Amino acid sequence: MIVQKYKEMLGAKSVIRTLSEAATVRAGQIGRQNVFDYSLGNPSVPVPSCFKEAVISLLEEEDPMTVHGYSPTLGIPSVKEAIARSLNERFGMNYGPEHIFPTSAAAAAIAHALRAVSVPGDEVLTFAPYFPEYQPYVDLTGAVLKVVPADTTSFQINFEAFEQMIHEKTAAVLVNTPNNPSGAVYTEETLRRLADVLLKKQAEYGHDIFLISDEPYREIVFDGKKQPYVSKFYANTISCYSFSKALSLPGDRIGYLAVNPACPDAATIVNMCGQISRGIGHNCPATLMQLAVSRVLDQTADFSIYEKNRNLLYDCLTDIGFDVVKPAGTFYIFPKALEEDAIAFCQKALAYDLVLVPADTFGCPGYFRMAYCVDTEKVERSLPVLVKFAKEVYGR
Amino acid sequence: MIVQKYKEMLGAKSVIRTLSEAATVRAGQIGRQNVFDYSLGNPSVPVPSCFKEAVISLLEEEDPMTVHGYSPTLGIPSVKEAIARSLNERFGMNYGPEHIFPTSAAAAAIAHALRAVSVPGDEVLTFAPYFPEYQPYVDLTGAVLKVVPADTTSFQINFEAFEQMIHEKTAAVLVNTPNNPSGAVYTEETLRRLADVLLKKQAEYGHDIFLISDEPYREIVFDGKKQPYVSKFYANTISCYSFSKALSLPGDRIGYLAVNPACPDAATIVNMCGQISRGIGHNCPATLMQLAVSRVLDQTADFSIYEKNRNLLYDCLTDIGFDVVKPAGTFYIFPKALEEDAIAFCQKALAYDLVLVPADTFGCPGYFRMAYCVDTEKVERSLPVLVKFAKEVYGR
Repeated sequence: MIVQKYKEMLGAKSVIRTLSEAATVRAGQIGRQNVFDYSLGNPSVPVPSCFKEAVISLLEEEDPMTVHGYSPTLGIPSVKEAIARSLNERFGMNYGPEHIFPTSAAAAAIAHALRAVSVPGDEVLTFAPYFPEYQPYVDLTGAVLKVVPADTTSFQINFEAFEQMIHEKTAAVLVNTPNNPSGAVYTEETLRRLADVLLKKQAEYGHDIFLISDEPYREIVFDGKKQPYVSKFYANTISCYSFSKALSLPGDRIGYLAVNPACPDAATIVNMCGQISRGIGHNCPATLMQLAVSRVLDQTADFSIYEKNRNLLYDCLTDIGFDVVKPAGTFYIFPKALEEDAIAFCQKALAYDLVLVPADTFGCPGYFRMAYCVDTEKVERSLPVLVKFAKEVYGR
Repeated sequence: MIVQKYKEMLGAKSVIRTLSEAATVRAGQIGRQNVFDYSLGNPSVPVPSCFKEAVISLLEEEDPMTVHGYSPTLGIPSVKEAIARSLNERFGMNYGPEHIFPTSAAAAAIAHALRAVSVPGDEVLTFAPYFPEYQPYVDLTGAVLKVVPADTTSFQINFEAFEQMIHEKTAAVLVNTPNNPSGAVYTEETLRRLADVLLKKQAEYGHDIFLISDEPYREIVFDGKKQPYVSKFYANTISCYSFSKALSLPGDRIGYLAVNPACPDAATIVNMCGQISRGIGHNCPATLMQLAVSRVLDQTADFSIYEKNRNLLYDCLTDIGFDVVKPAGTFYIFPKALEEDAIAFCQKALAYDLVLVPADTFGCPGYFRMAYCVDTEKVERSLPVLVKFAKEVYGR
């Protein structure tokens, strides 16, 4: 019999998907260039040429039996070593290849991490606003996702609520910084305080609490700043990385999981991921992709376009009078809607061909997300439309 | 806390892996060319050049935003359509794109199929000899794998045992033809009889019993013959395909799942796979790989080398007096050992630098597997060694 659990998931259509489809219909009517589609978090800046060169050079110059051959279950040793070295140099860590597990981007890394450290019935905490896919990621392991309400003044962590919600059954805490959807970058102070709470609670409950750090936007930080490396603050950290955003290649499905060497079970967790893979049909990302990214580990796409877009939108939104925290990274901005019901707000914006996403499914009702991974020229054209919309509908 | 279930899996080392490591150590002593390593099922014939050309042309000529962009959750429509068309033309099926779900090779296809049609506590039946990875594939879904003993006269299906073992809790039957490790190709007669049993039992129990067909060797059939297409015989069939063997690219992790359109839930199952993916972090195989294989769907590597190796080994083994069924496909041969304990037999062969795999973990004690995806020149050099081994140790 087909399994009801999955069949029942089919009914619910994501808000983002529905909006994106409405945008496509409208694009058919007035031309795509006239729809200001801020709905999808697809990287818009080009893949750096070094990646293409790496792939072609592997295909042209290396032994095809190696390039197309099976990856070892735990990943290709030279790739794991290169990743460890790059992380150590950039973040002052002490990884060895035994702490690195290549994965099909961050989604697979999180799927492995969750299975390694939680069992059905356990709780996994995350902080609003959060990436809505965390819900099925956790649900389908049998654990339960609990969402700590947002600190809407800064989109750092609401520690008061967090300390009330963490308890005996908390197996893991899932963080995402730089954050989708708020654009917030957790500060050293935030990460230190988070580690303090986790250490205290580990001691109190007498068991590990793992920090699962989802880091696809790690390199996209503005104003010349950097994301403090999450794992530096807490030993029991599993970092889940993807090259999707850093290199603008979400379709290539390549990333890794890195367990802090100071975690007593670090190498064991990586070995366990090899076993988890057997059950979920993962069996390592493509050999070609592992080898290609290992040659361009310290490169990124050009993020100056995202920063320019952030500046344009932030200035315009604050001029209009939106309540908005300036994003320190990512390609998202997260203002408060001009009425309480953000779904109604975004619906009204659609009439102006502005595609905005209400944040109810991000655990932060009343706010909306704009994904500004779009051409700057289009952002510029959208500004007077935003002004017009706010004035005509809300008298701003 | 780290999860004991996966930690406990770490202790058990696979027999194949242990043997392969012994072969590597020996290769270090006497040179790899002098070790007759028949342990690993890695394709040894070259990737057809059309695949490399497809990848490079995609990178050089297509829009990078498409080539490196996200695949839709259910796979790229044009790729699904091309796969459906190719299957329809070759096997007289009636697939539409809605029946096809691209996966990271057959392992991921099986992982999705098992989750779509079985729940914890259900039983999944397979037939010995079987690919040992079926054990963790099924175990980690919470279902229970039951192994029907082999029909050692032909390595078709032992129907008597099958009819005794199938029962109310059987959710799925997992078959693999052409078969790893026996090399058997299920005949039309076998597949028809299998369908008859399944139809009868479905009616008797009042619920679906799905046939999950693992088909990575589908094109590797000798003597000008073809594998009858499994799904043609039974509506509730989920075919799990991989390009790993057909195109000699196991490291590229690309394949698909195809649900027979005559299955009433066919399109629903594919949609459910999209939901299952969210939980297991799969999110479609790389866009580049989907697009590349869609351009070479009807190509294969040159399998004449496998057929030549099969002939050399089969003739030699029968000359020596081995009890062996002639493989009709794959790159495996599966003789009966010359003593009851195949593990002891393979251990003794190691002294002759012959790396053979005892079939205990394939559910068929007393037999051994030789993977002849090796150079023909090496196969030829191994024949007198096989003769010498059989003569000196067993007086043959």
